[in-house]
Amino acid sequence: MGESILSNTAFQMSLLMFVAIAGYLIAYRINQSAVVGIIIAGIIVGPSLLGWVTYTDFVSTLGNLGAVVLLFTIGLEFSLKDILKVRYFLIALCGVIVPAICGYFLAVLFGYDFKASIIIGTALTATSIAITANVLREMGKLKTETAKAIIGAAVIDDVLALLALSVSKGLVSGDLSAANITIAAAKAVGFLVIAVLVGRFLLSRLMLYLDKTKIAAKYPESLFIFAIMVAFFYATMAELIGLSAIVGSFLAGASLEGAKMMRGKVFKEGAEHLQIIFASIFFVSLGVIMDFHAVNVSLICFILALSAVAILTKIIGCGLTALVQRMSIKDSIIVGTGMVPRGEVAMIVALIGLNQGIINQSAYSALVLMSLITTIIPPIALRNWLYKDSRQVI
Amino acid sequence: MGESILSNTAFQMSLLMFVAIAGYLIAYRINQSAVVGIIIAGIIVGPSLLGWVTYTDFVSTLGNLGAVVLLFTIGLEFSLKDILKVRYFLIALCGVIVPAICGYFLAVLFGYDFKASIIIGTALTATSIAITANVLREMGKLKTETAKAIIGAAVIDDVLALLALSVSKGLVSGDLSAANITIAAAKAVGFLVIAVLVGRFLLSRLMLYLDKTKIAAKYPESLFIFAIMVAFFYATMAELIGLSAIVGSFLAGASLEGAKMMRGKVFKEGAEHLQIIFASIFFVSLGVIMDFHAVNVSLICFILALSAVAILTKIIGCGLTALVQRMSIKDSIIVGTGMVPRGEVAMIVALIGLNQGIINQSAYSALVLMSLITTIIPPIALRNWLYKDSRQVI
Repeated sequence: MGESILSNTAFQMSLLMFVAIAGYLIAYRINQSAVVGIIIAGIIVGPSLLGWVTYTDFVSTLGNLGAVVLLFTIGLEFSLKDILKVRYFLIALCGVIVPAICGYFLAVLFGYDFKASIIIGTALTATSIAITANVLREMGKLKTETAKAIIGAAVIDDVLALLALSVSKGLVSGDLSAANITIAAAKAVGFLVIAVLVGRFLLSRLMLYLDKTKIAAKYPESLFIFAIMVAFFYATMAELIGLSAIVGSFLAGASLEGAKMMRGKVFKEGAEHLQIIFASIFFVSLGVIMDFHAVNVSLICFILALSAVAILTKIIGCGLTALVQRMSIKDSIIVGTGMVPRGEVAMIVALIGLNQGIINQSAYSALVLMSLITTIIPPIALRNWLYKDSRQVI
Repeated sequence: MGESILSNTAFQMSLLMFVAIAGYLIAYRINQSAVVGIIIAGIIVGPSLLGWVTYTDFVSTLGNLGAVVLLFTIGLEFSLKDILKVRYFLIALCGVIVPAICGYFLAVLFGYDFKASIIIGTALTATSIAITANVLREMGKLKTETAKAIIGAAVIDDVLALLALSVSKGLVSGDLSAANITIAAAKAVGFLVIAVLVGRFLLSRLMLYLDKTKIAAKYPESLFIFAIMVAFFYATMAELIGLSAIVGSFLAGASLEGAKMMRGKVFKEGAEHLQIIFASIFFVSLGVIMDFHAVNVSLICFILALSAVAILTKIIGCGLTALVQRMSIKDSIIVGTGMVPRGEVAMIVALIGLNQGIINQSAYSALVLMSLITTIIPPIALRNWLYKDSRQVI
């Protein structure tokens, strides 16, 4: 075992890192976020084109680790206070409901069955926090009120989308009764509340306490290991309750917020470094799992329609809600546009659908491509049109 | 695939992190380095006692990743100039030859066959850089001449031990001819030279160049991924050439030294954070792979004799060489004692021997226990006796 696996492990790791580096070069070349480039690199080396990398256990295991770590670090970026604002909740809610309904009916229109349509609708709900925040940071707009609305709503949106995922999991598993849906939602909300309370008032305090002990003074790295343990423990619990593992790790990150002010700062930076390596493996794996041999003309039509629906429903759903909340028309369009990128959560939903046999390869490819398209367009729109004349909006 | 593995992955990761945390508590309790505590925790949860964790593919894959990352970060600690001093080379050489010969004959005395005795002798050669350096740092002695001698020799020692490993691999594979041994040594030395030259004059410069490009400005994390790619690529090459993968990653770290002064410092700190998580999984796996059901009275005698030989041969081999080089008697004993810990390299040698069926479970357990014992004694000796009266030696 050992030696041959070590050989394999080392080679596969260097190959995956190489693909990720290629992804950065692509991203730079096409002036996009790294995520987009790495997924494209994954598509190129995957079975769609070169066939160098396949979706082995090794790739999927490390990719799954990466997804958990990614959402943990995203969670660390947000305090629960930032997230829990009614205004943002309403923007997020409309940004979930409108795309879900329109996505569902579009899928039905294109001949997908009930279960697949539910998954496709669900995949349209989530906003990528990472991509949106990154675009705003690159443009120096993070401190504006518009940006806070986008980020706050995007975070709530992710949680709602993940709740939608567990509800739709219940739906596709055939448990259609109102009671079952209520139970699934109650379990999800119950887990959210308990996870946040335990994280905030028990684990954060425990970490702050441990930080002052002699153990942490002697072994400062132990607190980092503790934080990662919590992330994976929350991920495990979320799965046990029927939620996606990444909801758990996101909540772990968001609720350990109180412990972020520890000496050494080891744990947040450390998590980011883990994320750099393993999230890039995750993005590579998203490209690798795609197989474009399934793509044909009717699928291309579906992809284009799906992307158009994905973009318009977010702009309308979120933008109108922002407008009702007395934001200016331009700011409302910025909020709506900022919510367009679907990114990793949509891909995770698609992956779950594929792995459970609910959607086929072509629908999976369509969702991933939709996610790529919606990720590429808003940065261009924000940079070239919406923020063009205004150096400082609000 | 995805979902069930994710569940598995998340649960196993949280369990491994939990074991590592327990290891820190044990280490603190018995006032030892974290390595010792984590291995003991691994022994406790492994098949020897509780049986919670077994040596699955998941554990071995992540453990192997951890070994590569660990030696990479150790490599980053050293510039090649620090390592390549003739004085330290001589100390290291005697600290390799004396233990190897004595270990071999002790094993023969205890009835082990030729191949097993070679592996046991080889396992006695390596000094753990991590443990020695950590002990010296804890005592604030890192800047002393004695400490530099210990660390320099320990580094060369590791390289020599790893060369010894490849030579003994040749020996146990039956290729006993002088020509074959020469070829193995030449290949190892050739790899060392080429790896160092490429790392130092090509990859380091490439990284420094990349650091100044717009790509690195836009995606600073890409250089970190590049460094990790180099580490695993070197590990792969080392294995292809017949060396251990960790020699490769150590050399990658040591030869990328020129690139350490990059802005952001992302890559060294990042590698350390990867190492914190994955090296702790590696140490857990070292404990988990042990099975003490094989331990009996005659094995205990062998373990005690082996540990005594391991301690005395390093003190005599390295200490005498230091004495010849006009160090004081006390400093020479300190150098010899500082070289006693065997740590991870000995365990890796033992693991390779076990995986290739050259040594059995009981010999493996003996080597790991020897490694633990030699790791525990020097910190006690240095702290309580050798550095007791001297606040500042030299």
